[in-house]
Amino acid sequence: MTSIRPRPATITDIAKRAGVSTATVSYVLNDAPGSRIPESTRTRVRSIADELGYVPHASARSLRKGSSDLVLYVQMDVVHGPLAAEFHHQLTLRLRDMGYTLLQYGGERHRGVKAARTWAAMRPSAVIVEHERLTPAGIELLRKSDIQVIATGVAAEAVKGDGVSTLNMDDLGVGHRAGEHLVGRGYRDLAAVVPRGNVLRRIGTLRLQGLQEAAARAGVGATVRSLDMDWSPESAAEVVRTWLDEGLPEAVFGYNDEFSGLLLGALQDAGVRVPEQTALVGADDVMLCRMLRPRLTSVRLEPASIEATAGEIIRAVTERTEVHLSPWTPVLVRRDT
Amino acid sequence: MTSIRPRPATITDIAKRAGVSTATVSYVLNDAPGSRIPESTRTRVRSIADELGYVPHASARSLRKGSSDLVLYVQMDVVHGPLAAEFHHQLTLRLRDMGYTLLQYGGERHRGVKAARTWAAMRPSAVIVEHERLTPAGIELLRKSDIQVIATGVAAEAVKGDGVSTLNMDDLGVGHRAGEHLVGRGYRDLAAVVPRGNVLRRIGTLRLQGLQEAAARAGVGATVRSLDMDWSPESAAEVVRTWLDEGLPEAVFGYNDEFSGLLLGALQDAGVRVPEQTALVGADDVMLCRMLRPRLTSVRLEPASIEATAGEIIRAVTERTEVHLSPWTPVLVRRDT
Repeated sequence: MTSIRPRPATITDIAKRAGVSTATVSYVLNDAPGSRIPESTRTRVRSIADELGYVPHASARSLRKGSSDLVLYVQMDVVHGPLAAEFHHQLTLRLRDMGYTLLQYGGERHRGVKAARTWAAMRPSAVIVEHERLTPAGIELLRKSDIQVIATGVAAEAVKGDGVSTLNMDDLGVGHRAGEHLVGRGYRDLAAVVPRGNVLRRIGTLRLQGLQEAAARAGVGATVRSLDMDWSPESAAEVVRTWLDEGLPEAVFGYNDEFSGLLLGALQDAGVRVPEQTALVGADDVMLCRMLRPRLTSVRLEPASIEATAGEIIRAVTERTEVHLSPWTPVLVRRDT
Repeated sequence: MTSIRPRPATITDIAKRAGVSTATVSYVLNDAPGSRIPESTRTRVRSIADELGYVPHASARSLRKGSSDLVLYVQMDVVHGPLAAEFHHQLTLRLRDMGYTLLQYGGERHRGVKAARTWAAMRPSAVIVEHERLTPAGIELLRKSDIQVIATGVAAEAVKGDGVSTLNMDDLGVGHRAGEHLVGRGYRDLAAVVPRGNVLRRIGTLRLQGLQEAAARAGVGATVRSLDMDWSPESAAEVVRTWLDEGLPEAVFGYNDEFSGLLLGALQDAGVRVPEQTALVGADDVMLCRMLRPRLTSVRLEPASIEATAGEIIRAVTERTEVHLSPWTPVLVRRDT
């Protein structure tokens, strides 16, 4: 921002130093076929480029060709598990092979047009974003800027169509699997917790709904009670107190492994034996399940194939087509609880 | 990439539709002071811009002004905790207020010049990256491209100087605090685990060193044994078997809370009472500590101030100065183990 600031080397700098035209430099550095430039000139240009630390400018390239090679992954507030991290890493590498750069943006919590405007200003080829942050007007703005939209998260299908691709999580299926397991084990008086907080509540409500559907489908008169819960040991203790007052449920679906971990601690503090007095099922199958004693039974979302999913997302970006993915299969992992 | 593809609206499109010059459009949309454009024209230009979904092009802006507003956060393989996520979010918002866009890149695992070249191609103003991925030649390349470098992680100070800023973690201090606590409680036969795997091993070795220094400093003849451990219940069981063979240590520093969680499970499986037979201290103070029974004692890295740290990083980026930060203070959180 001041005049003494060093300036990145340009093609012009290299051309001057090498005593050739900028076109020649450009030919050499781009390995353009069919140009008859002597090898000695090529070598000189390359060594000057190295010396000056010349690096081609990605956004200059994208401006020249009139399209962007940026894919924007909008994400925040999220504690990534190892599975999500691996998926993100694979997607980055595979997009890079196709000439795209995947960058993650964790800025303001806006949604709708305001958010879409921020993303569009970066002129990406595509935006991958939780569907909750999309509105029809926001999608319209992105479409006008020729930006592919890939909506992720719970029930991403809500925004499906009109060019919007979706990457859906099967949270209803997680609830189904938990319910089938518990009813199948002979439990009839089931309970579930639903986390407070916007995003988690939506996921929790779907998982609860899945549990209720599985209980109803079994046709054995199983019932499901539910309570709200905060992400704290105090809230877990309060939930357990309520159950002790109302009558201990035969089995609990604890939303996910972490909430179940808090519930297990609170049940143990209250002297409740798990699973003898109350069975407990978590979800996500994180390492925590194998730290706890008794070890936590859980529902795992098994990815079909990270490779195949990444490939489909790349197809949406490069071929500008709509894809709809739901690549996770809920699988019960039975342990001690 | 084909001719039927919609094209984002440009200033020229707006000018044509409004029947004014592109300069007029530019004046209106940039709210340029001192231009005498009638309010009716301004209104017309703005409504056409809205209708066409016009969004200014961030990288066009950065090309025009000759400097980039992109700050690149290079990160992968990392399971973010809530503290890191909040820090990242705050930094993004504060940089945005200063006109910068923070984007995260989780691509290839290169280091040195190869990695630096990839980052430099995106022409950021600054790169925030784990110091392990920097080499002198890589730093030199970034400097030539006028990119500020902020090195993070364990012992980031190794690459300090020559314009490289550092954001250091006090892992030595974590070991000190754990050691002071355990020796202070009267334990003399201490043990620690060091995780296998490149990045974790480096952190673990520093934490172990801190523990050893604290034991030596106390001058009471305390000793520290150490074992390598994988991130698995099987490896935890093997560590506990070795301890049972060699004689159970009076107290264990379990590297972090998660490794300690695995060790606690393995100790319980072996019938070892914690803390009566063996005390246990974790690190990071995550929610897991309050799920486990007994509840896990831990060392927490307390951030001085996310605000102040973000402010210093912004200073490094905007004022192009070197800053050296070590904003975390290790604090012991005593619980049951």
